[in-house]
Amino acid sequence: MNRMKKTNISKEDLDDIATGAAFLGTGGGGDPYIGRLLALSAMDSYGTPRIVEAESIDDEALVFTIAMLGAPTVLGEKAACGDDVDLAIERLAQRIGRAPDALVGIEIGGINSLIPVMAAARLGLPLVDADGMGRAFPEIQMVTFNVRGVSCTPLSVTDDHLTSVIVDTDGAKPAEDLVRVTAMHLGLSVIISSYPMSGAQLKDSAVRGTLTLAREVGCAIRRGRREGNPVETLVDYLRTTPYYNQCKVLFDGKISDIQRETKQGFNIGHCRLDTLDGSGRKMEITFQNEFLVAREDGKTRAIVPDLICLVDRETANPITVEALKYGQRVKVIGTSAAPIMRSPESLAIFGPRCFGLEEDFVPLEDIPE
Amino acid sequence: MNRMKKTNISKEDLDDIATGAAFLGTGGGGDPYIGRLLALSAMDSYGTPRIVEAESIDDEALVFTIAMLGAPTVLGEKAACGDDVDLAIERLAQRIGRAPDALVGIEIGGINSLIPVMAAARLGLPLVDADGMGRAFPEIQMVTFNVRGVSCTPLSVTDDHLTSVIVDTDGAKPAEDLVRVTAMHLGLSVIISSYPMSGAQLKDSAVRGTLTLAREVGCAIRRGRREGNPVETLVDYLRTTPYYNQCKVLFDGKISDIQRETKQGFNIGHCRLDTLDGSGRKMEITFQNEFLVAREDGKTRAIVPDLICLVDRETANPITVEALKYGQRVKVIGTSAAPIMRSPESLAIFGPRCFGLEEDFVPLEDIPE
Repeated sequence: MNRMKKTNISKEDLDDIATGAAFLGTGGGGDPYIGRLLALSAMDSYGTPRIVEAESIDDEALVFTIAMLGAPTVLGEKAACGDDVDLAIERLAQRIGRAPDALVGIEIGGINSLIPVMAAARLGLPLVDADGMGRAFPEIQMVTFNVRGVSCTPLSVTDDHLTSVIVDTDGAKPAEDLVRVTAMHLGLSVIISSYPMSGAQLKDSAVRGTLTLAREVGCAIRRGRREGNPVETLVDYLRTTPYYNQCKVLFDGKISDIQRETKQGFNIGHCRLDTLDGSGRKMEITFQNEFLVAREDGKTRAIVPDLICLVDRETANPITVEALKYGQRVKVIGTSAAPIMRSPESLAIFGPRCFGLEEDFVPLEDIPE
Repeated sequence: MNRMKKTNISKEDLDDIATGAAFLGTGGGGDPYIGRLLALSAMDSYGTPRIVEAESIDDEALVFTIAMLGAPTVLGEKAACGDDVDLAIERLAQRIGRAPDALVGIEIGGINSLIPVMAAARLGLPLVDADGMGRAFPEIQMVTFNVRGVSCTPLSVTDDHLTSVIVDTDGAKPAEDLVRVTAMHLGLSVIISSYPMSGAQLKDSAVRGTLTLAREVGCAIRRGRREGNPVETLVDYLRTTPYYNQCKVLFDGKISDIQRETKQGFNIGHCRLDTLDGSGRKMEITFQNEFLVAREDGKTRAIVPDLICLVDRETANPITVEALKYGQRVKVIGTSAAPIMRSPESLAIFGPRCFGLEEDFVPLEDIPE
């Protein structure tokens, strides 16, 4: 496997990153296809952003996250205009009294894999090959930066009318609650720059190398399609990664039922799957923006923060919650989350109970088939 | 009438200002009794604020408004803590890159007559004897500062947990909408510092001398009580003022019906009054935080932005919407608003149609009895 660190990102890489990010989005995070267009357009106008490893960032450097926030269904309809991205970073820099030295993604899953690429290109800033979860999550406090004590505020929120809001709260959950009502009011698709942190804090908390991993996931799917076995190639690749190496195909079937609503600023619901072989096995998958738990005949097969990903059973194309369709033939893949995501401190912030699920986290590899 | 300009404010003045501000609040603006306690406590700890005339402010000076914002029913339950007031001004100063040279009230009616006194005392800043309406209004855009083109943003919102939000919008109504959802989320009682303006802008837009007027209204009511004719003394005094000189007792009766709800961040409803003399005349008064229109048997007697004020028929004590009680015996006083408040530009921002009333403004003095 090619683990060579690229110090640059090419336009061709954007396709692979978008595919990989859709997979790592575990159903949520917004459609990275939009992010790909935004990043592509920014790279056309402003050049290619420099991608750097977390280790290369000075302890005293200042790093901002940059992301879109909202319900994934809306993120795809109301994209960033670019000036809103610049403004979010400018306002946060002004609030702090210092410009950032680098940017980092908040989540590698979904559209937010590529918004930082767009921002780094526009502003000529290096982008750290890392994020705060190695997947996607619906709420601001659900990141390793918060787990490790980085304050999520001051943060800035902007929209495409160049409305800007700077928020300071005592704690990440109050910030999430306040930003959510703000985002709902502004149309449920906003830009947010948050978790201003030092290089030392970044190195203590970030999930490393995830932009590279997203690219390689996308690359594996593309290679598999060429070779005629995309799901197998994908699973084989995941088993070689530092985080996603516990990996199982949990179910092979078709979607028989979908219930989906946009509520309190989130996409909430569940889907049910039947097997194709007439065995009568059934799986139910619950989501809040992302897939949270997959149960087969009532028995948990994989649960958050481990990743539950639906892919087209022929092409391995990742399927987001908003793209779920009745009758679709899919494979359900479960993979382990990064180790930092499974610590007791992390589970207190984004374990199953944080989503209202009444069960404890069990690592995928410890759940019997 | 004593028109001597006081350059100071005494603790004894606070009582009169609170009474006068309750009258000028036209039923809304929050209970100034709370504002009186806050101002008194600040003056005890920090000394007496200096009151200055608008004309004494340099053209290049920087002036901020400071106010509480929320539903009046809640403002009375959840008072400012002081640190939230300081923080709102500090955050706005930081956003602008410059500390204010003076403060000014946004509305003289209700609690916001005295929040600036509290703030000026705490921060050792001069307070301009003026406001942006000469009464009270429910929404941020409904001020003469906005009518005359002063931008209401950047503005800051804080709460007693020292949450802070800095807002920049394109226009005052979008700011109102965004601040309202923020305030609702934070508990419907927040501190807001807005309309940062130059001394030149202040002199172009402010309604002058209203802190003095509020004190003198309170003083007239107090004197009238001593002399046994408080409503008459009040009306006589109002007729000598530069703004409130068109003045009528519109109705003398008792409250027979009240409908009141807290909706979308406002106190909304109406009350009905019967006469005491058995004449069968009836008045209905509609409110959104403040009294908006008084109709007798369906015929408009006074309408916003003119002031409609309910006072106890024996003591002339001003009655706020939240203090309305079945069976209460009241007189309804209508007075003219300041001339700047009746201009076509002003009526476009806070005339009757801005409150959903389907009729045009007619000055009180032009409405036949």
